[in-house]
Amino acid sequence: MIGRLNHVAIAVPDLEAASAQYRDALGATVGGPQDEPDHGVTVVFIELPNTKIELLYPLGEASPIQGFLDKNPSGGIHHVCYEVEDILVARDHLIETGARVLGGGEPKIGAHGKPVLFLHPKDFNGCLIELEQV
Amino acid sequence: MIGRLNHVAIAVPDLEAASAQYRDALGATVGGPQDEPDHGVTVVFIELPNTKIELLYPLGEASPIQGFLDKNPSGGIHHVCYEVEDILVARDHLIETGARVLGGGEPKIGAHGKPVLFLHPKDFNGCLIELEQV
Repeated sequence: MIGRLNHVAIAVPDLEAASAQYRDALGATVGGPQDEPDHGVTVVFIELPNTKIELLYPLGEASPIQGFLDKNPSGGIHHVCYEVEDILVARDHLIETGARVLGGGEPKIGAHGKPVLFLHPKDFNGCLIELEQV
Repeated sequence: MIGRLNHVAIAVPDLEAASAQYRDALGATVGGPQDEPDHGVTVVFIELPNTKIELLYPLGEASPIQGFLDKNPSGGIHHVCYEVEDILVARDHLIETGARVLGGGEPKIGAHGKPVLFLHPKDFNGCLIELEQV
Protein backbone atom coordinates (compact mmCIF):
# COMPACT_ATOMS: atom_id res chain seq x y z
CA MET A 1 0.00 0.00 0.00
CA ILE A 2 2.51 2.65 1.00
CA GLY A 3 4.84 3.68 -1.81
CA ARG A 4 7.72 6.14 -1.81
CA LEU A 5 8.88 8.06 1.21
CA ASN A 6 7.78 11.51 0.03
CA HIS A 7 9.62 13.46 2.71
CA VAL A 8 10.93 13.61 6.26
CA ALA A 9 9.79 16.75 8.09
CA ILE A 10 12.08 18.37 10.66
CA ALA A 11 10.76 21.15 12.89
CA VAL A 12 13.44 23.79 13.43
CA PRO A 13 13.73 26.75 15.81
CA ASP A 14 15.56 28.96 13.29
CA LEU A 15 14.66 28.41 9.65
CA GLU A 16 17.41 30.63 8.24
CA ALA A 17 20.12 28.97 10.31
CA ALA A 18 18.85 25.46 9.50
CA SER A 19 18.69 26.28 5.76
CA ALA A 20 22.23 27.68 5.82
CA GLN A 21 23.45 24.61 7.68
CA TYR A 22 21.96 22.14 5.20
CA ARG A 23 23.35 24.21 2.33
CA ASP A 24 26.82 25.05 3.66
CA ALA A 25 27.72 22.38 6.23
CA LEU A 26 25.87 19.42 4.67
CA GLY A 27 26.20 20.63 1.07
CA ALA A 28 22.60 19.93 0.04
CA THR A 29 20.33 21.69 -2.47
CA VAL A 30 18.14 23.97 -0.37
CA GLY A 31 15.13 25.93 -1.68
CA GLY A 32 13.77 29.24 -0.45
CA PRO A 33 11.24 29.62 2.36
CA GLN A 34 7.57 29.19 1.39
CA ASP A 35 4.80 30.47 3.62
CA GLU A 36 1.86 28.10 3.91
CA PRO A 37 -0.65 30.21 5.88
CA ASP A 38 -3.40 27.57 5.55
CA HIS A 39 -1.14 25.12 7.36
CA GLY A 40 0.47 27.47 9.85
CA VAL A 41 3.99 26.74 8.67
CA THR A 42 6.80 28.17 6.63
CA VAL A 43 8.60 25.38 4.80
CA VAL A 44 11.98 24.96 3.17
CA PHE A 45 12.55 21.96 0.92
CA ILE A 46 15.87 20.20 0.72
CA GLU A 47 16.14 18.14 -2.43
CA LEU A 48 18.04 14.89 -2.04
CA PRO A 49 18.55 12.56 -5.02
CA ASN A 50 15.81 10.16 -3.84
CA THR A 51 13.50 12.15 -1.54
CA LYS A 52 13.06 15.48 0.23
CA ILE A 53 13.66 16.90 3.67
CA GLU A 54 11.07 19.47 4.70
CA LEU A 55 12.16 22.02 7.29
CA LEU A 56 9.14 23.34 9.22
CA TYR A 57 8.88 26.61 11.11
CA PRO A 58 5.74 27.99 12.79
CA LEU A 59 3.71 30.63 10.93
CA GLY A 60 0.95 32.56 12.67
CA GLU A 61 -0.70 32.23 16.06
CA ALA A 62 -2.04 28.70 15.86
CA SER A 63 0.74 26.81 14.15
CA PRO A 64 0.42 23.04 14.57
CA ILE A 65 4.14 22.76 15.21
CA GLN A 66 4.48 25.40 17.93
CA GLY A 67 3.65 22.86 20.63
CA PHE A 68 6.26 20.48 19.25
CA LEU A 69 8.93 23.20 19.41
CA ASP A 70 7.84 24.18 22.92
CA LYS A 71 8.51 20.56 23.97
CA ASN A 72 11.63 20.26 21.80
CA PRO A 73 13.33 23.67 21.77
CA SER A 74 16.26 22.43 19.64
CA GLY A 75 13.79 21.07 17.06
CA GLY A 76 13.36 17.48 16.01
CA ILE A 77 12.03 15.06 13.43
CA HIS A 78 8.33 15.86 13.25
CA HIS A 79 6.87 13.31 10.81
CA VAL A 80 7.48 11.07 7.83
CA CYS A 81 5.27 11.15 4.75
CA TYR A 82 4.50 8.03 2.73
CA GLU A 83 2.86 8.19 -0.67
CA VAL A 84 -0.31 6.22 -1.41
CA GLU A 85 -2.20 5.80 -4.66
CA ASP A 86 -5.70 6.16 -3.19
CA ILE A 87 -5.97 7.89 0.14
CA LEU A 88 -9.56 6.77 0.84
CA VAL A 89 -8.73 3.12 0.21
CA ALA A 90 -5.67 3.50 2.43
CA ARG A 91 -7.68 5.21 5.17
CA ASP A 92 -10.44 2.61 5.18
CA HIS A 93 -7.94 -0.24 5.32
CA LEU A 94 -6.04 1.39 8.18
CA ILE A 95 -9.21 2.02 10.17
CA GLU A 96 -10.16 -1.66 9.68
CA THR A 97 -6.82 -2.63 11.27
CA GLY A 98 -7.61 -0.43 14.29
CA ALA A 99 -5.43 2.57 13.47
CA ARG A 100 -6.65 6.03 14.36
CA VAL A 101 -6.73 8.74 11.72
CA LEU A 102 -6.31 12.27 13.07
CA GLY A 103 -8.71 15.14 12.49
CA GLY A 104 -11.93 13.24 11.82
CA GLY A 105 -10.60 11.05 9.03
CA GLU A 106 -11.42 13.27 6.05
CA PRO A 107 -8.42 14.03 3.84
CA LYS A 108 -7.34 17.65 3.65
CA ILE A 109 -5.37 19.38 0.95
CA GLY A 110 -1.79 19.38 2.22
CA ALA A 111 1.06 21.79 1.79
CA HIS A 112 1.85 20.27 -1.64
CA GLY A 113 -1.72 20.72 -2.95
CA LYS A 114 -2.54 17.01 -2.64
CA PRO A 115 -4.90 15.11 -0.30
CA VAL A 116 -3.26 14.12 2.97
CA LEU A 117 -4.12 12.39 6.23
CA PHE A 118 -2.19 11.97 9.46
CA LEU A 119 -2.15 8.78 11.55
CA HIS A 120 -2.03 8.77 15.33
CA PRO A 121 1.60 8.46 16.47
CA LYS A 122 0.64 6.31 19.46
CA ASP A 123 -0.59 3.67 17.01
CA PHE A 124 2.66 3.75 14.98
CA ASN A 125 5.62 3.44 17.35
CA GLY A 126 5.54 7.07 18.41
CA CYS A 127 6.00 8.16 14.79
CA LEU A 128 3.64 10.69 13.23
CA ILE A 129 2.84 9.41 9.73
CA GLU A 130 1.43 11.55 6.95
CA LEU A 131 -0.12 9.79 3.97
CA GLU A 132 -0.20 11.75 0.72
CA GLN A 133 -2.11 10.73 -2.38
CA VAL A 134 0.11 11.21 -5.42
CA MET B 1 27.96 16.70 -0.03
CA ILE B 2 25.12 14.60 1.32
CA GLY B 3 23.54 12.32 -1.23
CA ARG B 4 20.62 9.93 -0.91
CA LEU B 5 18.60 9.45 2.23
CA ASN B 6 19.76 5.92 2.99
CA HIS B 7 17.18 5.21 5.68
CA VAL B 8 15.00 6.54 8.47
CA ALA B 9 15.44 4.58 11.71
CA ILE B 10 12.48 4.11 14.05
CA ALA B 11 13.02 2.66 17.52
CA VAL B 12 10.13 0.37 18.42
CA PRO B 13 9.06 -1.26 21.69
CA ASP B 14 7.80 -4.47 20.00
CA LEU B 15 9.65 -5.50 16.87
CA GLU B 16 7.23 -8.25 15.90
CA ALA B 17 4.18 -6.02 16.27
CA ALA B 18 5.82 -3.16 14.37
CA SER B 19 6.89 -5.51 11.56
CA ALA B 20 3.37 -6.94 11.30
CA GLN B 21 1.89 -3.47 11.25
CA TYR B 22 4.12 -2.24 8.43
CA ARG B 23 3.39 -5.43 6.49
CA ASP B 24 -0.33 -5.80 7.11
CA ALA B 25 -1.69 -2.34 7.93
CA LEU B 26 0.67 -0.25 5.77
CA GLY B 27 1.19 -2.92 3.11
CA ALA B 28 4.96 -2.55 2.84
CA THR B 29 7.69 -5.07 2.03
CA VAL B 30 9.14 -6.09 5.39
CA GLY B 31 12.24 -8.23 5.91
CA GLY B 32 13.06 -10.59 8.75
CA PRO B 33 14.76 -9.56 11.99
CA GLN B 34 18.57 -9.38 11.90
CA ASP B 35 20.59 -9.38 15.09
CA GLU B 36 23.51 -6.94 15.07
CA PRO B 37 25.29 -7.82 18.33
CA ASP B 38 28.17 -5.43 17.61
CA HIS B 39 25.70 -2.56 17.53
CA GLY B 40 23.35 -3.70 20.28
CA VAL B 41 20.29 -3.78 18.05
CA THR B 42 18.02 -6.12 16.20
CA VAL B 43 16.92 -4.51 12.94
CA VAL B 44 14.11 -5.06 10.48
CA PHE B 45 14.32 -3.36 7.09
CA ILE B 46 11.26 -2.09 5.29
CA GLU B 47 11.93 -1.62 1.60
CA LEU B 48 10.21 1.35 0.03
CA PRO B 49 10.64 2.12 -3.68
CA ASN B 50 13.11 4.95 -3.00
CA THR B 51 14.62 4.31 0.44
CA LYS B 52 14.40 2.11 3.54
CA ILE B 53 12.84 2.31 6.97
CA GLU B 54 14.92 0.59 9.64
CA LEU B 55 13.06 -0.63 12.71
CA LEU B 56 15.39 -0.79 15.72
CA TYR B 57 14.96 -2.90 18.83
CA PRO B 58 17.48 -3.22 21.68
CA LEU B 59 19.75 -6.28 21.76
CA GLY B 60 21.86 -7.09 24.81
CA GLU B 61 22.58 -5.22 28.02
CA ALA B 62 24.16 -2.05 26.66
CA SER B 63 22.02 -1.27 23.65
CA PRO B 64 22.44 2.33 22.45
CA ILE B 65 18.70 2.63 21.92
CA GLN B 66 17.51 1.42 25.34
CA GLY B 67 17.78 4.94 26.77
CA PHE B 68 15.75 6.31 23.87
CA LEU B 69 12.98 3.77 24.50
CA ASP B 70 13.08 4.49 28.23
CA LYS B 71 12.36 8.14 27.41
CA ASN B 72 9.94 7.30 24.58
CA PRO B 73 8.12 4.12 25.60
CA SER B 74 5.91 4.13 22.49
CA GLY B 75 9.01 4.36 20.30
CA GLY B 76 9.92 7.16 17.93
CA ILE B 77 12.01 8.29 15.00
CA HIS B 78 15.59 7.73 16.15
CA HIS B 79 17.75 9.05 13.32
CA VAL B 80 18.07 9.72 9.62
CA CYS B 81 21.00 8.44 7.55
CA TYR B 82 22.45 10.41 4.66
CA GLU B 83 24.90 8.88 2.21
CA VAL B 84 28.26 10.52 1.52
CA GLU B 85 30.96 9.61 -0.97
CA ASP B 86 33.92 10.12 1.35
CA ILE B 87 33.23 10.05 5.05
CA LEU B 88 36.57 11.56 6.10
CA VAL B 89 36.15 14.53 3.76
CA ALA B 90 32.60 14.97 5.05
CA ARG B 91 33.75 14.75 8.67
CA ASP B 92 36.57 17.26 8.26
CA HIS B 93 34.28 19.72 6.49
CA LEU B 94 31.62 19.38 9.19
CA ILE B 95 34.13 19.89 12.00
CA GLU B 96 35.37 23.04 10.23
CA THR B 97 31.82 24.39 10.31
CA GLY B 98 31.67 23.78 14.06
CA ALA B 99 29.58 20.60 14.10
CA ARG B 100 30.32 17.95 16.69
CA VAL B 101 30.92 14.36 15.61
CA LEU B 102 29.97 11.76 18.19
CA GLY B 103 32.25 9.04 19.54
CA GLY B 104 35.63 10.70 18.98
CA GLY B 105 35.22 11.36 15.28
CA GLU B 106 36.62 8.11 13.90
CA PRO B 107 34.24 6.30 11.54
CA LYS B 108 33.02 2.89 12.69
CA ILE B 109 31.75 0.05 10.59
CA GLY B 110 27.99 0.38 10.76
CA ALA B 111 25.18 -2.14 10.68
CA HIS B 112 25.41 -2.32 6.87
CA GLY B 113 29.15 -3.07 6.86
CA LYS B 114 30.10 0.43 5.73
CA PRO B 115 31.89 3.31 7.54
CA VAL B 116 29.50 5.52 9.50
CA LEU B 117 29.60 8.54 11.79
CA PHE B 118 26.92 10.20 13.90
CA LEU B 119 26.54 13.97 14.30
CA HIS B 120 25.46 15.62 17.54
CA PRO B 121 21.68 16.18 17.45
CA LYS B 122 21.96 19.47 19.35
CA ASP B 123 23.95 20.86 16.41
CA PHE B 124 21.34 19.68 13.86
CA ASN B 125 17.90 20.82 14.99
CA GLY B 126 17.46 18.02 17.51
CA CYS B 127 17.88 15.46 14.73
CA LEU B 128 20.41 12.64 15.10
CA ILE B 129 22.16 12.32 11.71
CA GLU B 130 24.11 9.27 10.60
CA LEU B 131 26.47 9.64 7.68
CA GLU B 132 27.27 6.48 5.74
CA GLN B 133 29.97 6.17 3.12
CA VAL B 134 28.60 4.29 0.13
